Amino acid sequence: MKGVFSDRISDVPRSFIREILKVAIDRSIISFAGGLPNRDLFPVAALKEASARVFDIYGSDALQYANSEGFLKLREYIADRYKEKGLAFTPDNILITNGSQQGLDLMAKVIVNEGDDVIIEEPGYLGAIQAFSLYKPMYHPVPVDDYGMDIAALQRVMSKARPKLMYTVPNFQNPSGISYPEENRRAVAETLEGSDCYLMEDDPYGELRYTGTPAPSFKKLLPAQTILLGTFSKTLVPGFRLGWIAAPDDLMEKLIIAKQAADLHTTQFIQMITYQYLTDNDTEAHIRLIKDRYGKQLAAMLASLDEFCPPGVTHTHPQGGMFIWAALPQGLSSRVLLDYALKDKVIFVPGDTFYINRSESNDMRLNFSCMDENMIRTGIERLGKAIRMMLNE
Amino acid sequence: MKGVFSDRISDVPRSFIREILKVAIDRSIISFAGGLPNRDLFPVAALKEASARVFDIYGSDALQYANSEGFLKLREYIADRYKEKGLAFTPDNILITNGSQQGLDLMAKVIVNEGDDVIIEEPGYLGAIQAFSLYKPMYHPVPVDDYGMDIAALQRVMSKARPKLMYTVPNFQNPSGISYPEENRRAVAETLEGSDCYLMEDDPYGELRYTGTPAPSFKKLLPAQTILLGTFSKTLVPGFRLGWIAAPDDLMEKLIIAKQAADLHTTQFIQMITYQYLTDNDTEAHIRLIKDRYGKQLAAMLASLDEFCPPGVTHTHPQGGMFIWAALPQGLSSRVLLDYALKDKVIFVPGDTFYINRSESNDMRLNFSCMDENMIRTGIERLGKAIRMMLNE
Repeated sequence: MKGVFSDRISDVPRSFIREILKVAIDRSIISFAGGLPNRDLFPVAALKEASARVFDIYGSDALQYANSEGFLKLREYIADRYKEKGLAFTPDNILITNGSQQGLDLMAKVIVNEGDDVIIEEPGYLGAIQAFSLYKPMYHPVPVDDYGMDIAALQRVMSKARPKLMYTVPNFQNPSGISYPEENRRAVAETLEGSDCYLMEDDPYGELRYTGTPAPSFKKLLPAQTILLGTFSKTLVPGFRLGWIAAPDDLMEKLIIAKQAADLHTTQFIQMITYQYLTDNDTEAHIRLIKDRYGKQLAAMLASLDEFCPPGVTHTHPQGGMFIWAALPQGLSSRVLLDYALKDKVIFVPGDTFYINRSESNDMRLNFSCMDENMIRTGIERLGKAIRMMLNE
Repeated sequence: MKGVFSDRISDVPRSFIREILKVAIDRSIISFAGGLPNRDLFPVAALKEASARVFDIYGSDALQYANSEGFLKLREYIADRYKEKGLAFTPDNILITNGSQQGLDLMAKVIVNEGDDVIIEEPGYLGAIQAFSLYKPMYHPVPVDDYGMDIAALQRVMSKARPKLMYTVPNFQNPSGISYPEENRRAVAETLEGSDCYLMEDDPYGELRYTGTPAPSFKKLLPAQTILLGTFSKTLVPGFRLGWIAAPDDLMEKLIIAKQAADLHTTQFIQMITYQYLTDNDTEAHIRLIKDRYGKQLAAMLASLDEFCPPGVTHTHPQGGMFIWAALPQGLSSRVLLDYALKDKVIFVPGDTFYINRSESNDMRLNFSCMDENMIRTGIERLGKAIRMMLNE
């Protein structure tokens, strides 16, 4: 039975992150390698209550097969939230998915033929690259940094290729923590306008802003071509695997067929619990709690990086989210640094993981959501020491 | 933005069943068109209790990201059940999926290249055809009836094509209710043995046997090539969207990558509730309850068909599951019958839906899981009347 696998499965990158995370089981190690929300902030009691109420209110209705689009009340809730932000989606434009990861898979499924041009950010979110790779696109990576997307590079791609899809995380990107400034967004939208390229705005972290002011969604700047991905993973709990796609009408029909073929529908029981929780609780207060905690942790990490890292080490300046992106002086390898760091009991994810076709780079992803400020300070102090060790050898 | 869709999405058949089911909202209509488990038998109180216990036992652990393979205790439970039946799977051979529908999608994803030969049953399960169609296989339908699969037809396919995958529902098939007798299974296994063709045994109804004795799983007859799909949809509740793939080691690695790319993992909270329910309750007694109820309904439908249908109308003789397959005399159309039946306030699913590339056939699927014996008798009486009306015009 050798050689029976499909071509598409051979092209999917393995997750190096999973390998690193195995190391993190050692309790003496400080791990900036993870990407998880802080479990101490999960509203366990409120969700237990919501779950009990769902059984009482809906009974067996919560447990039967349901429609592929998702629980109507939850879709209405999501559409209302968009409306408050001035984004024009009706409940019919919302498809409930198993986390936003499934939104990536479904979108690629209905859009991407083998060899089709797809624009991704560089560095970019590994989960998206994994999902898209199964549909064998031709990737066109475009650099992003604290100033947003590299417009000249984007224009070069648009002039030589015919991209069908551009994938972006414009707010507090994973892995870099950067956000696209408003002017940069307008330039991106202008570059894509009138093309046959959908812009997929994946926004898991948008609600987690600790400083600064938000820039407009691409839905406002490029309405006909923009698809939004949303999730309850970062503001409620990731374990529910509950996300959504917000897409124009013409796409929805295809997405629903793909969803039906993929798994019929997302469990309605979970959708009902989430809706019940959102209805019965002060969710704004809960998000404020998360923001307050993560905001302090971000500030602690930024300050510690400036304090403990030798000159030549740079980092992004996120205003939200869960990650900072740090870079060693050009020519140095963050994989090599990881060996030093491991000895000093601190770990991170080497940056090459977030590029396609690279096995080394000088940058790294640092997560700050799961640790208190003291621990972050200690960890970054260790990291600074490891960098100095590496520079001196 | 026209013409941007992928080729694969254009080839997926729409679900005619969904259209029919809209009619069934009229309460005066007796519907044999559905395919749902009977919601009156859902153990709502026990699941409410299990859900509360999961919050108490696991707390935030139930709500965090989890591994792609699935909750270990649940995989152990499933592997133990297989062991009791003499089927050699370890927990490492079990991947938890969002219902068995996702198992279909993942298997096709890791196996099927465009144009690859895939054997399906005729008539066959529409959900499988929908899932596979996205990967653009070349279908080879092989007829099935009360005697199992047509071995001569299967041998013809194996001699002219190189199938990678054969999809079967050997126990109480959807739509026909038929099961493959043991001798037929042995002949199928012999025909496939040594080829590069995986046999996918989808077994949602296996536990729901009301009469007769079970035949061995293909896992016993063709161990290296058999993949099993299982689900809690028919023995517990479908709304949890909880199923699994049991596959050999070499396939598991690829399936896990595909699962990760598709949606990271199935919600662990639901897996924990299911495990808790299975541990804390007499699940055998619950399944006996379902079997007792459905068994009586099946008997009522079989007796009513014999009593009310004119000569020339035939039907299968299922020993379990949720469906009977009935056929009008050759040359007549069950789509035309549906118009007569609608006037008499009874509906079913016309058989052509379960074939590929047919728009008419003389057969039909009748579901018996959701109605009591009196209702079934009344509905089949109406159906018999509609058939006579059609025959006389």
